Amino acid sequence: MSSNQLWIYDTTLRDGAQREGIALSIEDKLKIARKLDKMGVPFIEGGWPGANPKDVQFFWRLKETPLEHSEVVAFCSTRRPNRVAAEDSLLQAILTAGTHWVAIFGKSWDLHVTEGLHTTLEENLAMIGDTLEYLRSQGRRVIYDAEHWFDGYKANRDYALKTLRTALEAGAEWLVLCDTNGGALPHEVTQIIEEVREALPELQTTGENSPRLGIHTHNDGGTAVANAIAAVMAGAKMVQGTINGYGERCGNANLCTLIPNLQLKLGYDCVTPEQLARLTLTSRAVSEIVNLAPDDHAPFVGRSAFAHKGGIHVSAVAKNPLTYEHITPEVIGNRRRIVISDQSGLSNVLAKARSFGIDLEQDDQTCRQILAELKVLEKEGYQFEAAEASFELLMRSAIAQRPHRFHLKGFQVHCNASDVIESNALATIKVSVNGEDLLEVAEGNGPVSALDQALRKALVRFYPQIAEFYLTDYKVRILDSNSGTSAKTRVLVESSNGEQRWTTVGVSTNIIDASYQAVVEGIEYGLLLRSQSVPEGSPLKAPIL
Amino acid sequence: MSSNQLWIYDTTLRDGAQREGIALSIEDKLKIARKLDKMGVPFIEGGWPGANPKDVQFFWRLKETPLEHSEVVAFCSTRRPNRVAAEDSLLQAILTAGTHWVAIFGKSWDLHVTEGLHTTLEENLAMIGDTLEYLRSQGRRVIYDAEHWFDGYKANRDYALKTLRTALEAGAEWLVLCDTNGGALPHEVTQIIEEVREALPELQTTGENSPRLGIHTHNDGGTAVANAIAAVMAGAKMVQGTINGYGERCGNANLCTLIPNLQLKLGYDCVTPEQLARLTLTSRAVSEIVNLAPDDHAPFVGRSAFAHKGGIHVSAVAKNPLTYEHITPEVIGNRRRIVISDQSGLSNVLAKARSFGIDLEQDDQTCRQILAELKVLEKEGYQFEAAEASFELLMRSAIAQRPHRFHLKGFQVHCNASDVIESNALATIKVSVNGEDLLEVAEGNGPVSALDQALRKALVRFYPQIAEFYLTDYKVRILDSNSGTSAKTRVLVESSNGEQRWTTVGVSTNIIDASYQAVVEGIEYGLLLRSQSVPEGSPLKAPIL
Repeated sequence: MSSNQLWIYDTTLRDGAQREGIALSIEDKLKIARKLDKMGVPFIEGGWPGANPKDVQFFWRLKETPLEHSEVVAFCSTRRPNRVAAEDSLLQAILTAGTHWVAIFGKSWDLHVTEGLHTTLEENLAMIGDTLEYLRSQGRRVIYDAEHWFDGYKANRDYALKTLRTALEAGAEWLVLCDTNGGALPHEVTQIIEEVREALPELQTTGENSPRLGIHTHNDGGTAVANAIAAVMAGAKMVQGTINGYGERCGNANLCTLIPNLQLKLGYDCVTPEQLARLTLTSRAVSEIVNLAPDDHAPFVGRSAFAHKGGIHVSAVAKNPLTYEHITPEVIGNRRRIVISDQSGLSNVLAKARSFGIDLEQDDQTCRQILAELKVLEKEGYQFEAAEASFELLMRSAIAQRPHRFHLKGFQVHCNASDVIESNALATIKVSVNGEDLLEVAEGNGPVSALDQALRKALVRFYPQIAEFYLTDYKVRILDSNSGTSAKTRVLVESSNGEQRWTTVGVSTNIIDASYQAVVEGIEYGLLLRSQSVPEGSPLKAPIL
Repeated sequence: MSSNQLWIYDTTLRDGAQREGIALSIEDKLKIARKLDKMGVPFIEGGWPGANPKDVQFFWRLKETPLEHSEVVAFCSTRRPNRVAAEDSLLQAILTAGTHWVAIFGKSWDLHVTEGLHTTLEENLAMIGDTLEYLRSQGRRVIYDAEHWFDGYKANRDYALKTLRTALEAGAEWLVLCDTNGGALPHEVTQIIEEVREALPELQTTGENSPRLGIHTHNDGGTAVANAIAAVMAGAKMVQGTINGYGERCGNANLCTLIPNLQLKLGYDCVTPEQLARLTLTSRAVSEIVNLAPDDHAPFVGRSAFAHKGGIHVSAVAKNPLTYEHITPEVIGNRRRIVISDQSGLSNVLAKARSFGIDLEQDDQTCRQILAELKVLEKEGYQFEAAEASFELLMRSAIAQRPHRFHLKGFQVHCNASDVIESNALATIKVSVNGEDLLEVAEGNGPVSALDQALRKALVRFYPQIAEFYLTDYKVRILDSNSGTSAKTRVLVESSNGEQRWTTVGVSTNIIDASYQAVVEGIEYGLLLRSQSVPEGSPLKAPIL
């Protein structure tokens, strides 16, 4: 174990789940835990069995197929005032979780003891001491979370330090200083941690079994990551945070930002290089499991984190990436992207074409033609930054490399609803394949679904691989919100064939039209991918064209 | 002028506009400039006339109705290599903008001089000196942006310092140190700024006309705000950033986070207290103008920044806000929110009821009934965190205070499209008002618009105020993305009556159904608001009930 070792402690499943809009099932929690385990996170806080009884199931489900790298931790408060620890149901609940490690939070701020718990400062110390001793007597290893540490320390330094001393004497192996309200700034964190280390001589020893400091920060002041870095530089060895910074209010410290800063820039050891290369994947998988759109602009792991737009940047990055990138994106599993947009110059179009495997020359007339068409479409409301599959189709059209596998001749949709029967939708579609006109009809739960069904019904006998395609996301944006429901609508559709994902775009004043354009291009692009990626002669290769 | 004075420099219109997805018209830029002016931002960077010729119009349009508090700044690079400054068209373009202040960026990093500009280190110094002298000779005041400062300083300290000395000698009043690639960490910023101040004695004088340091940071390492704070604490007097942190890749330093940190926590003077109270408003107005959804979890100004969810928090905050809030939200124009969600306890429902002006008692049976209904609906996919109007309607139903102004009996929608004619939609609706059944039909650009039109047509003669309502936003979310287009759809609709805004929710497997539920509740809630806010006897008061 190197002296640069840090212990990452993930609390996505507990503190992260407090974010508005997140509601995790046990299956969701298990999936996230396995992603964290694969990334080599040493500690995973799984839940608070005393507050959420179903959390106990999570711990037991994990025992059936244990994690490989991570210790799973159960979370709880100290015992309640004026009770015996062994008789407090909260502590019984945490024991039933059956974990080696437990995290216990206690009050550091005198105000919270007297105003929140309505008890005495002495009783609070007893609550900390009793709880930890009891859990130690049951064979558990204890992480002590000092809630509201920084505010408490500023309000009453001596009392706050007494709570830590009590926890140490009762057998805590880790003392985690929490900025619960998230308002501390880095210089305060540095100073207070230095003072704590001075005040508690136990923290100055460096043996294998010496107690150590940890840090838990929230982002209310926008400095959660910087605060955690400041703490580590002042001697904290455990860093608590969440994937994508999920958490109540403004979130917790974002581990996807912290880990690469600590490891790549400051030289600490958090995970192996192979595990670090899973960071972007993990970030996106977790955002999918919790069903929140990923933040494209997130440091390190965002889709735009290494995106280049301006003409100067694009040509410079092509020559020497380090001139415009603070790290190499591949190290954390991300990649460089050239952005296509209204501001694009010819060099962007060329770079994009190359990334699609399309040969274009700067002085090629086609190149200017693509740029001109792009600008017209963007003016109409299309946006290709997020819909690269549609952009590739547009490019292939321009160079006459877009196979016309089918041609849509028209559709009709009928929906009806009453307060008696379930609503339903019926779609009729006319499509021509190889000069043959096909008329198909299908029902669906909604109009887009009915259209999608009708189209697949018509096409699947020509292109059996369509049966594997499915839609993974569907986003609608009103472009001119002042015109209300009659405004222009932009629809982005993400499709998958189980291995790859691609996004297409449609724009219309009619949401059905816009959805339909995007669905049709989604199917078209999927067929293109298949015919490119499947080796010659394979029976799955598009049979016609 | 106090010694704690800081100068905020906003670059939303220039660097912020580099964010993927932002494309600003001149009207948009003017609107944003006026918002910044009202907030008392001393410097507004308006654009780069050399790169975007239409930016010149922006500067001239502003001269017609000048700003009250802000200086508008035109941005440009140094002259090109081996040219005469007076003959460089880039510099001519910046002069045509007609601003008192200009910001000129030059290269600090030797690598960028030789690899990017393909010129000599000597010529780069001449480019900086010539450009600034020429602009000074034309009566302009100069802010010098040292691009890639921190990387350049680390690579070649002596050369980097030479560029600053050249700019100072040529008359720059401000030297702005830029972390262009966004990878610096706060401790490096502190150390390098201290070294710069030591190396350049001019920066140690403190007269009214002494040159001063500024800081410009990007968020690629997630520490843009902390870096700017570190710079200010080390002596920088100008802070550059953007509203909502918009900017290329991971964005620029977020002024909505920086200003309250600097002013409320560190005691610097940036804007007046009245101007600071406009911060939340400004953040949201700008996100609306650039047409990006506001970040609900943004520090200070986010909708969730002072939202309380857990049961313990809610009762504690009610007693003493400072126990769980790092600042008072009203100071920056935000407000406390009690969140209604799956995890809600009775105390949350009570607090929410109070905020709606509804009297409920803890031991009231209705209270438990609301909570139970809430949990059932959230399981079905409804989400009331973002749809408070729908939640208020649900509560008023439970206490028999929801006026039934109309009852929807059913609808039919028909859309058709072909490749020859424009698509259109036709909606038929049956609604009962006061026991009278009405059948109405309307056309629209899309199905939701057609339904909305038909409903208004039926209702407007009973409730004339409906003519004033309009939809301001429309969001669609697929709830179970693995089932593709046949998955459940959640629609959030934001409506306005020109003064207030409210959001309603609908859920269904059919997007038309879900939209329709939300539109209907939107109209219903609008009528409720009107009847509450208009004084007794007013002719606008809902005439029938």
